[in-house]
Amino acid sequence: MNIGILGSGMVGKALATALVNKGHNVVIGTRDPGKLAEWAATQGENLKISSPSEAAQHAEIVLHATSGQAALQALESAGAENLKGKLVIDISNPLDFSKGFPPTLFVKDEDSLAEQIQRAFPEAKVVKTLNTLTADLMLNPGNLNGGDHTIFLSGNDQDAKNEARAFLESFGWQDIIDLGDITTARGTEMFLALWVRIYGSLGKAHFNIKIVQ
Amino acid sequence: MNIGILGSGMVGKALATALVNKGHNVVIGTRDPGKLAEWAATQGENLKISSPSEAAQHAEIVLHATSGQAALQALESAGAENLKGKLVIDISNPLDFSKGFPPTLFVKDEDSLAEQIQRAFPEAKVVKTLNTLTADLMLNPGNLNGGDHTIFLSGNDQDAKNEARAFLESFGWQDIIDLGDITTARGTEMFLALWVRIYGSLGKAHFNIKIVQ
Repeated sequence: MNIGILGSGMVGKALATALVNKGHNVVIGTRDPGKLAEWAATQGENLKISSPSEAAQHAEIVLHATSGQAALQALESAGAENLKGKLVIDISNPLDFSKGFPPTLFVKDEDSLAEQIQRAFPEAKVVKTLNTLTADLMLNPGNLNGGDHTIFLSGNDQDAKNEARAFLESFGWQDIIDLGDITTARGTEMFLALWVRIYGSLGKAHFNIKIVQ
Repeated sequence: MNIGILGSGMVGKALATALVNKGHNVVIGTRDPGKLAEWAATQGENLKISSPSEAAQHAEIVLHATSGQAALQALESAGAENLKGKLVIDISNPLDFSKGFPPTLFVKDEDSLAEQIQRAFPEAKVVKTLNTLTADLMLNPGNLNGGDHTIFLSGNDQDAKNEARAFLESFGWQDIIDLGDITTARGTEMFLALWVRIYGSLGKAHFNIKIVQ
């Protein structure tokens, strides 16, 4: 598939590598393509670095993986017309590191970053997922506990959630819980407050939660 | 052991039953003892219903299980002098149901209810734990997944956390992660925002998280 990634940090690059390895055709959209040139040269011909708008234009599915602070601006650069009608998988978290570690959340509890994005781009089909675990595991679930751990879906459009689920299953995800509409992203975004504390205690990011019932 | 429970709701009663079944000597402290008389008569002679101050006086370990809104007032009724130097296991969550379900949190992110309690009662040894799962599982972990699921500890006093850990292990808990000082309770309290969404999706409270690494 043609996938567009917005975000050129650790998360965007980890996603791109996993997607290219799976044979997808990937364009990373960034304001500063030069920054990624050296790394991109190691990823093969199925990866291109371009502008946010070209990445979105290219995409059947858009993965939004910028830092939370940059989210609305990055999606604006991608262009509402290029996101219209498309599945936009939002992986970002509203982390505020301005007071150091652990971060606080700049939106929470009665709103969420996913809702802000959905409101700003009402014709995009925003599905929040994958924001509850470390980048290296997002599209490589089999690298932890034989793939037996949990992720969540939040979104208003059931077809888009089905499309996201199928996409995630193609990477080996088995335990995907649909939490409901986009407001349920408040839950997964606020989980970050616990995630950073577990990270602090275990001294590593290579973990996830499994819902046991 | 002599255990005092503050809180006469679903959580307090579930804890009391589990404690009595294990042979502990329990006093529930409540403003309205009459409310529990009929239920208490079914619990045997190791359970007494009394005032908050008598429950705390009686206790070697205090379990705080009131609703979050009532927390500081209930602990005030118990009396700082009766909490002094004791392990106070705080199970409450800062849930605000004034806008309906799902609840929001009345303190979060840059403070927590556990920290408010520790500040208000500086000579009590507050350890936050068990606030991330449903009442029936708190002291009966074996009733889910053979007991293989996770709880957390947050507190400033290492001896008190060791005491809490031993207490929890005596009920079968095996996977107890020490998150750090009392500020880490922000993480487990904010997890409630995800808990209520998982509860909404699964349609049941009988679940917990397991940290897989």
